[in-house]
Amino acid sequence: MNADTATVRIPPCSARTVELSLGHELVIIDPEGQQVSDLVAFGRPDSAEYLSSGRSLDYASRLWLTTGDVLYSNRSRPMFTILEDTCGRHDFTLTPCSKDTFKLIYGESEGRPGCEGNLVSVLAPYGIGVDRIPVAFNVFMHVEIDATTGEFRVRPPRSNAGDFVRLRAEMPLVVAMTACSAGQSNNFRYKPIDFQVVR
Amino acid sequence: MNADTATVRIPPCSARTVELSLGHELVIIDPEGQQVSDLVAFGRPDSAEYLSSGRSLDYASRLWLTTGDVLYSNRSRPMFTILEDTCGRHDFTLTPCSKDTFKLIYGESEGRPGCEGNLVSVLAPYGIGVDRIPVAFNVFMHVEIDATTGEFRVRPPRSNAGDFVRLRAEMPLVVAMTACSAGQSNNFRYKPIDFQVVR
Repeated sequence: MNADTATVRIPPCSARTVELSLGHELVIIDPEGQQVSDLVAFGRPDSAEYLSSGRSLDYASRLWLTTGDVLYSNRSRPMFTILEDTCGRHDFTLTPCSKDTFKLIYGESEGRPGCEGNLVSVLAPYGIGVDRIPVAFNVFMHVEIDATTGEFRVRPPRSNAGDFVRLRAEMPLVVAMTACSAGQSNNFRYKPIDFQVVR
Repeated sequence: MNADTATVRIPPCSARTVELSLGHELVIIDPEGQQVSDLVAFGRPDSAEYLSSGRSLDYASRLWLTTGDVLYSNRSRPMFTILEDTCGRHDFTLTPCSKDTFKLIYGESEGRPGCEGNLVSVLAPYGIGVDRIPVAFNVFMHVEIDATTGEFRVRPPRSNAGDFVRLRAEMPLVVAMTACSAGQSNNFRYKPIDFQVVR
């Protein structure tokens, strides 16, 4: 990547958007280790096309996607190719944490917005509301599964400081990413996420 | 269930809708064994609320849902409770098969509509188009996972003739169900699905 590529920091428990054109590369970095970034993506200008977990997993025939895998839209068109992945473990089955998640899973009542609320805030200029936040590509999220019972546990990410995923945009996109707000996802140490765009 | 409850047959490679009110029960039956039904559900009258795989799996902390589990909407509200399940294995990670699935996975070129196309046809009266077909609750679908590599294979369903799932509607819903068109899902023997509504 270009040495002079600017690094943007997503502060703990917040989100950012970035617009990509075909061929742009997006590098998502875990600067401190053990932090998750929930990523959602929509076609630009037609945001009815969105990054689809169900399509992507089906075409890969694998639950965990990594270098060489393609992430597909709901219209079965490539949205991203994973060019490089120094961590190797991400989740693509769960929806972003939300105030309801915190209430139902953690018993919290203070109404923190969670990744869902943070994604909605930054996607508001694109007219994408809360009902259109799908299952996210949860970068660095480590979900351990029992293949006999199907029970899973959210474990601390396997990412170390500096681990990154490099994605190539296969169409014009608006991408929203978070520094995750869920304690389980980051070992209860809420940290930032960094990203770079190589244009 | 009521002995006089009418059984509706979904012919092979097609779909049907049914409207449910709070407390209605929907029984989905595999009449011949080894057949899958892709199920999607939307709030009624507000179809922006839909059955969410990501919410349901997260709250159950289990990849495979069965008796006693609750299926949640994208708004984290209960849509169904699974009251009874004589099969015990279903999928909730993959999107319905489509003409693109057949092309990309099977190398087919004849453009069969698949479950996606069939769901869209029956949901047209509700104004729900193809971009709003999410990951389905794939009743009787048997996806075998390698917990080390994450690789999965679609196996023939574990359902025998007469196996069923009984769901209670926890809000007013429009539900669309298929008799699945994907060969892998039903051991390449395309069969019907039956259902009953207990009002």
